[in-house]
Amino acid sequence: MYRSRFNVDLNKYSLDYTSSTTDDAAIILYDIIGSQAHVLMLYKNNIIPKNDSIKILIALEELKKLKIKNNLKYDDVHELIESMIINKLGIKCGGKMHTGRSRNDQISLDLRLKLREDVNMLCFYLIDLIDVLILLANKNKRTIMPLYTHLQQAQIGLFSHYLLSYADSLLRDFDRLYASYDRINECPLGSGPIGGTSMPIDRKFIMKKLKFKKLISNSIDATSTRDFVVEYLSLTSILMTNISRMAEDFIIWSTSEFSFIELADEFTSTSSIMPQKKNCDVLEIARGKTSCVIGNNICVLTILKSLPSGYNRDLQEIKKPLWSSSEISIQTIFIFKMILKSLIIKKSRMRSISSEGYLTSLDIAEALVKKKIAFRTAHKIVGKLVQIAYELNKPLSKLTVNEIKNSVEHDNHCTPELLIKIINSVTLESSLSNRMSYGSSGFYEQEKMIDERLKKIKSYKLKINKRRNEIKDAITNFSAEIKKTINRV
Amino acid sequence: MYRSRFNVDLNKYSLDYTSSTTDDAAIILYDIIGSQAHVLMLYKNNIIPKNDSIKILIALEELKKLKIKNNLKYDDVHELIESMIINKLGIKCGGKMHTGRSRNDQISLDLRLKLREDVNMLCFYLIDLIDVLILLANKNKRTIMPLYTHLQQAQIGLFSHYLLSYADSLLRDFDRLYASYDRINECPLGSGPIGGTSMPIDRKFIMKKLKFKKLISNSIDATSTRDFVVEYLSLTSILMTNISRMAEDFIIWSTSEFSFIELADEFTSTSSIMPQKKNCDVLEIARGKTSCVIGNNICVLTILKSLPSGYNRDLQEIKKPLWSSSEISIQTIFIFKMILKSLIIKKSRMRSISSEGYLTSLDIAEALVKKKIAFRTAHKIVGKLVQIAYELNKPLSKLTVNEIKNSVEHDNHCTPELLIKIINSVTLESSLSNRMSYGSSGFYEQEKMIDERLKKIKSYKLKINKRRNEIKDAITNFSAEIKKTINRV
Amino acid sequence: MYRSRFNVDLNKYSLDYTSSTTDDAAIILYDIIGSQAHVLMLYKNNIIPKNDSIKILIALEELKKLKIKNNLKYDDVHELIESMIINKLGIKCGGKMHTGRSRNDQISLDLRLKLREDVNMLCFYLIDLIDVLILLANKNKRTIMPLYTHLQQAQIGLFSHYLLSYADSLLRDFDRLYASYDRINECPLGSGPIGGTSMPIDRKFIMKKLKFKKLISNSIDATSTRDFVVEYLSLTSILMTNISRMAEDFIIWSTSEFSFIELADEFTSTSSIMPQKKNCDVLEIARGKTSCVIGNNICVLTILKSLPSGYNRDLQEIKKPLWSSSEISIQTIFIFKMILKSLIIKKSRMRSISSEGYLTSLDIAEALVKKKIAFRTAHKIVGKLVQIAYELNKPLSKLTVNEIKNSVEHDNHCTPELLIKIINSVTLESSLSNRMSYGSSGFYEQEKMIDERLKKIKSYKLKINKRRNEIKDAITNFSAEIKKTINRV
Amino acid sequence: MYRSRFNVDLNKYSLDYTSSTTDDAAIILYDIIGSQAHVLMLYKNNIIPKNDSIKILIALEELKKLKIKNNLKYDDVHELIESMIINKLGIKCGGKMHTGRSRNDQISLDLRLKLREDVNMLCFYLIDLIDVLILLANKNKRTIMPLYTHLQQAQIGLFSHYLLSYADSLLRDFDRLYASYDRINECPLGSGPIGGTSMPIDRKFIMKKLKFKKLISNSIDATSTRDFVVEYLSLTSILMTNISRMAEDFIIWSTSEFSFIELADEFTSTSSIMPQKKNCDVLEIARGKTSCVIGNNICVLTILKSLPSGYNRDLQEIKKPLWSSSEISIQTIFIFKMILKSLIIKKSRMRSISSEGYLTSLDIAEALVKKKIAFRTAHKIVGKLVQIAYELNKPLSKLTVNEIKNSVEHDNHCTPELLIKIINSVTLESSLSNRMSYGSSGFYEQEKMIDERLKKIKSYKLKINKRRNEIKDAITNFSAEIKKTINRV
Repeated sequence: MYRSRFNVDLNKYSLDYTSSTTDDAAIILYDIIGSQAHVLMLYKNNIIPKNDSIKILIALEELKKLKIKNNLKYDDVHELIESMIINKLGIKCGGKMHTGRSRNDQISLDLRLKLREDVNMLCFYLIDLIDVLILLANKNKRTIMPLYTHLQQAQIGLFSHYLLSYADSLLRDFDRLYASYDRINECPLGSGPIGGTSMPIDRKFIMKKLKFKKLISNSIDATSTRDFVVEYLSLTSILMTNISRMAEDFIIWSTSEFSFIELADEFTSTSSIMPQKKNCDVLEIARGKTSCVIGNNICVLTILKSLPSGYNRDLQEIKKPLWSSSEISIQTIFIFKMILKSLIIKKSRMRSISSEGYLTSLDIAEALVKKKIAFRTAHKIVGKLVQIAYELNKPLSKLTVNEIKNSVEHDNHCTPELLIKIINSVTLESSLSNRMSYGSSGFYEQEKMIDERLKKIKSYKLKINKRRNEIKDAITNFSAEIKKTINRV
Repeated sequence: MYRSRFNVDLNKYSLDYTSSTTDDAAIILYDIIGSQAHVLMLYKNNIIPKNDSIKILIALEELKKLKIKNNLKYDDVHELIESMIINKLGIKCGGKMHTGRSRNDQISLDLRLKLREDVNMLCFYLIDLIDVLILLANKNKRTIMPLYTHLQQAQIGLFSHYLLSYADSLLRDFDRLYASYDRINECPLGSGPIGGTSMPIDRKFIMKKLKFKKLISNSIDATSTRDFVVEYLSLTSILMTNISRMAEDFIIWSTSEFSFIELADEFTSTSSIMPQKKNCDVLEIARGKTSCVIGNNICVLTILKSLPSGYNRDLQEIKKPLWSSSEISIQTIFIFKMILKSLIIKKSRMRSISSEGYLTSLDIAEALVKKKIAFRTAHKIVGKLVQIAYELNKPLSKLTVNEIKNSVEHDNHCTPELLIKIINSVTLESSLSNRMSYGSSGFYEQEKMIDERLKKIKSYKLKINKRRNEIKDAITNFSAEIKKTINRV
Repeated sequence: MYRSRFNVDLNKYSLDYTSSTTDDAAIILYDIIGSQAHVLMLYKNNIIPKNDSIKILIALEELKKLKIKNNLKYDDVHELIESMIINKLGIKCGGKMHTGRSRNDQISLDLRLKLREDVNMLCFYLIDLIDVLILLANKNKRTIMPLYTHLQQAQIGLFSHYLLSYADSLLRDFDRLYASYDRINECPLGSGPIGGTSMPIDRKFIMKKLKFKKLISNSIDATSTRDFVVEYLSLTSILMTNISRMAEDFIIWSTSEFSFIELADEFTSTSSIMPQKKNCDVLEIARGKTSCVIGNNICVLTILKSLPSGYNRDLQEIKKPLWSSSEISIQTIFIFKMILKSLIIKKSRMRSISSEGYLTSLDIAEALVKKKIAFRTAHKIVGKLVQIAYELNKPLSKLTVNEIKNSVEHDNHCTPELLIKIINSVTLESSLSNRMSYGSSGFYEQEKMIDERLKKIKSYKLKINKRRNEIKDAITNFSAEIKKTINRV
Repeated sequence: MYRSRFNVDLNKYSLDYTSSTTDDAAIILYDIIGSQAHVLMLYKNNIIPKNDSIKILIALEELKKLKIKNNLKYDDVHELIESMIINKLGIKCGGKMHTGRSRNDQISLDLRLKLREDVNMLCFYLIDLIDVLILLANKNKRTIMPLYTHLQQAQIGLFSHYLLSYADSLLRDFDRLYASYDRINECPLGSGPIGGTSMPIDRKFIMKKLKFKKLISNSIDATSTRDFVVEYLSLTSILMTNISRMAEDFIIWSTSEFSFIELADEFTSTSSIMPQKKNCDVLEIARGKTSCVIGNNICVLTILKSLPSGYNRDLQEIKKPLWSSSEISIQTIFIFKMILKSLIIKKSRMRSISSEGYLTSLDIAEALVKKKIAFRTAHKIVGKLVQIAYELNKPLSKLTVNEIKNSVEHDNHCTPELLIKIINSVTLESSLSNRMSYGSSGFYEQEKMIDERLKKIKSYKLKINKRRNEIKDAITNFSAEIKKTINRV
């Protein structure tokens, strides 16, 4: 449509290769709404006549109801929609829609209109997931399990403590996403192709109608930069690595060998050939999709990295990774909530594994420290005890004075008898009762942490709901205004 | 279908999230062919009865003609197809199709069947593109242009020399892809889920029917590894960076300021708002899509990086990036051929820019070296001459003895007069006539290089055509055999 | 040192491979300070005796002055320092330092102590760079230049407008970094290996002494998560892509063909062989190092992606990329400030290129719109005019009525004479005077934007200085307290 | 040194930022050898006088013995070395060294000289590792273990089968690396800065002296492309993901819960605080370093992606990632060999876990198929059996006719009694004896596969040793020739 200076059309293969109309399906509605806001502004500022404006607004309103098909004949959704309007109203009327506007500010507007809703939806579901984590923690604050470092049993802990650690990680993800919103929610429309326009447009009018927080003032910046996109892709990468790590834990804990948890049947698959299999496919997919989100992130960074200023068509290629990461993140968060709600927790297995190993070694060493033995010495002594027990293939609690007296260094201060006594005084329960350090796995700390987070979550829910509703209401009100404007005629 | 040990179906959201049937559209046909080969083998080895075999083969043949719709009710295409067979033939007959086979070896087979065709097609178009580069070079072996380093004018050169440099780069890309084929073209079927099967299957039978070069013997390796996928993604990344660099050159050379080349109108777009624009959108898209290919590469590396051995569902997520990179590479290579064939080369502009700058500085310095002046001294002298000329805002050829005698160091051996004489003896043509080093921009070298490459290309074309035809013929013959088997009944 | 349960030492090759002491050079000082804070806390809470505490504090203070050599005999800096203390004071005294602490919370502390200073320094230099951009804009608010989209001349603009667009982008980078600080500035010490400790430690004491804003409460979260590291790596990636894009513009503008700017000699290199070259090496390096920063980002995401919870040694490998990205970013920002301050701007060249092309096409089209012609029609008319002028090889302003009357569609409303009149009425200056849209390249908008940003910058400087000083003062005060504690003895 | 056209030196900060002399340490020796070859060629072709040539050769020979310090005063190692020669011999003599050469062809030469040795060394150690895998397999061809898919127990298998699967994967890695060598081992010297030289140099002379296989003919290609670097980085990424996957298996198998293997003490670390820990740090580091190798890969792809043709300084930034990936890969392969050689394999634990689960389900289903039951029906029947056994918390072999007769579908053909009989006939040993499919875990297949691979390895060893020696000999001979040339004087 725009090719007035050329004598030939774009090559067919070339159009197939370059047209973004397939990826644009996600923003058609936003493009129509943005066009309506633009036309309303042109009309209110007497840039185009009332009569034409109303016709265009009506035609756009009708497009909303149409199921617009991909049409690879056009570069993109912007050309497609303008063409449909002109086809319907003729160039004298429809040809006025694009006055004082460029596709360069238009696409930035569309991206931002969609992305601000995506980020809100993601935040919304994220809080839901965190909520479920805390409620599940509340039910498991006495569920004893081994805590692992290097995937080796390290200390006795509580399942609630584990769940709360992800609640806290995800709360930071929420904070990051929530803060990024203000950098998305800025209005670029009215920037023209790069340097603005001589038409007497009113950028603030559109900003207010579409409930943007402010304008991106500089028109070069507004049309060239996509930092808000990379920021979103970075934050979803961070979020998804957190989810992926939880998936990794759950996959390992679902093995026959660990057997700490079991996913509800509705979230597992079996094998096409081995009837006994119960596979955590959903978790594996989540882990796999995390890689896609990372790939999307890198794709867009690489696109931007060496682009000169001003719109370049390379920027079109950020749409597919953006939609992909957004959809993956929202879906994954949503699925995880359901997985957690239906999770089968094998408490007795967790407990029996907890008592088999040497998980209280640090507790024993610290008990020695309280007897005035230097920590590093205590560490050595208990290390030796573990070695003896391991070689005798028994738990520490079954060691006898005879077995240890020749190998463990001791003196009057720290006799083998004392060691045995201390070993026997340390139980799973005593360990978790004595674990009083702030934020630890101790029983007391769980209560406190759960209470605090339940309160915190409430205020988070309020603020994300408020934000979602603001946008929803704004779009509803704007639609009503358009309808009123149309009907008034 | 496989969920005999579960009482509930997979959660609806979960199926949406995990089903790969959309991505599987690309391999449906391969899945059917692979299943036919498997059933034929089962029948020939008396593992399943002739009667049932024929029925299944017929049902599979009919599926080929069906346009199978995405069906998110199934995990993947394998389950979908087996279900369709069983629905049609009943479990007693259709339920025999999957004997001695697992989805884990089946998906690896499907990937390899498709990928070996993709790699052949890519090689095929690549040779076409290289051909066009050489033919264009042949037409431009006297087209003088500046060569650039650091995007600064460096030496006088020839456009043919530039084009040939990409022919050589792309020939290495061809070599790599051509060699990777043998690692793709290995047959995994018969590996079972991971450890093989007790059914008396004949793996070599299938290998031969589907014209694989050999078997991947170890069944754990066959079902777990995707190194052939990452290799392909790596090689397309390397290929696309080469294309992207050419695109970068062409975009810069298409600016008004350089104006060395112009893309045919059918490969450029204009602006929705600025009627004078002629934008190299196709090249920009190619550059952008290169980032997608890099993102796909990293996505799959990241998926594989920490997977334990054996099939894991994460592997499903490699399909989308694989199809994407394959399609992008093939399309881009194809488009570039057309762009080059229709490229407008502005020879006079290239030449005039060549004579304006200081592009013969090295030639002058080397002329001094031939007068027994040490290169580093010659370099300094010419550096000083350039500085003087630049400050006087004139070309070197306009410098006078007076202008240089006070600033350039000189002695009896190297007088200002000699310098002026040497400067004047160096012209664009003399520079390129004297440039005799092997592989240089010199006139003589162009002839030689073009001849050599034209010969080389011929043998490359032969070998890739042979390979494509082998596969095509094998599949055709196999289809004929199936039809014969069916009809014989 | 810790290997009490083993009978053999770590294999020599293995130590070479795993020891991080080389990378740890960057955190030795922080490790010592953190250890002092820990020991002071142990002493104040009567967990270890005053006597031993003072000795350890003295020994640590002396270590500060020592130039500690890499020592691949140790796993890491933590083991190295504890060993040095024990070697000096004996295990009975020195062996008490590590009471109630683990390397897992210790390394998280060290990373955060260093990173919060890095992020402050980066913010500090970033504001400096933005300042220089605005001051340079202030000097160039009448410097007319072409603005580019797709690297093709698009609209007339001003150099100030360009500079301000990067000031705005970088201000958003500042905002992001500034906000991330609060997620770094949280104290993990006291979390033990993963589940806390039974020693009666006081986590808040250390937090206050080292001026952390708050505690990371959950000990699993505190020892396992590195989201603050990926966030920093993501934000430096975004920042560096912005810088890289400016570098790309400047490299293109420094070509002989564009010749809009010239870097001061002190920031360019020449060739070892071509004396005429003036290469923008510094800018190219900046562009290249951006890729390293992206690589670092992906490296750490990939490390984290599939780690199970709890400290895993893989986390060690995040140090090298973290230090690398931090150093690159800070250095690059600093260099860019100097480059901008010494930049040579070729105003007359910019202006002459501006008048040569068809840069006022949109202005002409918009002038037609003001004559009640639909924009899309105006676009077509001017497109045709450009085509005619281009084929006649002349500027629009030299077109005559005769040349256009047969090819451009016209009617009574829009006569060829009117077109010529309008063309002639549009000049570079008129274009920029009439460009009144908010944030545009218009003359008026420049004044306004510069004023606003100068004010904004002031408040930004205040807040980053305040934050830097707070940390500096806290560390100074803490050192003073340690010295006083030592000397009091 | 080269800055004859400038009046000021490079800014100090700028030099710090841009100098690559630190990264160049790895190629100093290659740079000297390359310079010697170049000077010898200049001398033999009468381009520079014998006298000067000999002096330069001697001075270069002396440099070999010097420990050259980083010197950030120079751009890079090339400038540094030329400066040292000129300082020593004066410009009249030393200034002749760089005749007919540029840093652009020189750095490509240095990279290739180093890289071809690295790739040989990597191949060499890789074969060593594969050898150890096969020998270990040979010792474990009766070591029964569970094979896993989705980390769930899938089929009974053999540890030898597992080890052989990695031997096969790594053999493909070897093939890829071995083939890439020919694209590295091409000589770029004599290409000048980009377009060649007018000096009568003899490129083939240097090629032969340094034992390159052929010339990279096109001088633009020779100085611009780094595809051989990305190829190496891609292949090491693929290799390291294979290693990382083995590390992942071993880490999981080293948990107390699996307890299949134990690393020798000399390859594990313990905790600074928990004395009982035995952590697989070396494996975790290998997994972490895999991410670095992936990050390096992406870094270089991103650098190349949008560079215009000709040398650009961005290319300098590929050195650090290249050295890093090379070192990591070689070290990791070497360490893994030692880990495998000292690995403790807990055969009885592997076996007891093998008999606990439902690992023979497929064998039972296949036994039913042999009784003419359709596979899908057999799959369902066994699925039901597993469900019953799982709910009764007993192995399949303990099921009774009564327990199954009401729930499992049966008919005259497949009675509950038959099922029980079949179940009881399937043992671990029978399963592996009946597993006859090619490449399976069956006992028979192990013998065959081990034999074949032992033979294959021998020929691989021969060819990599031959290649290494060729290069070593060539460099030794060339050094001898230089010494003879020097001494002859």
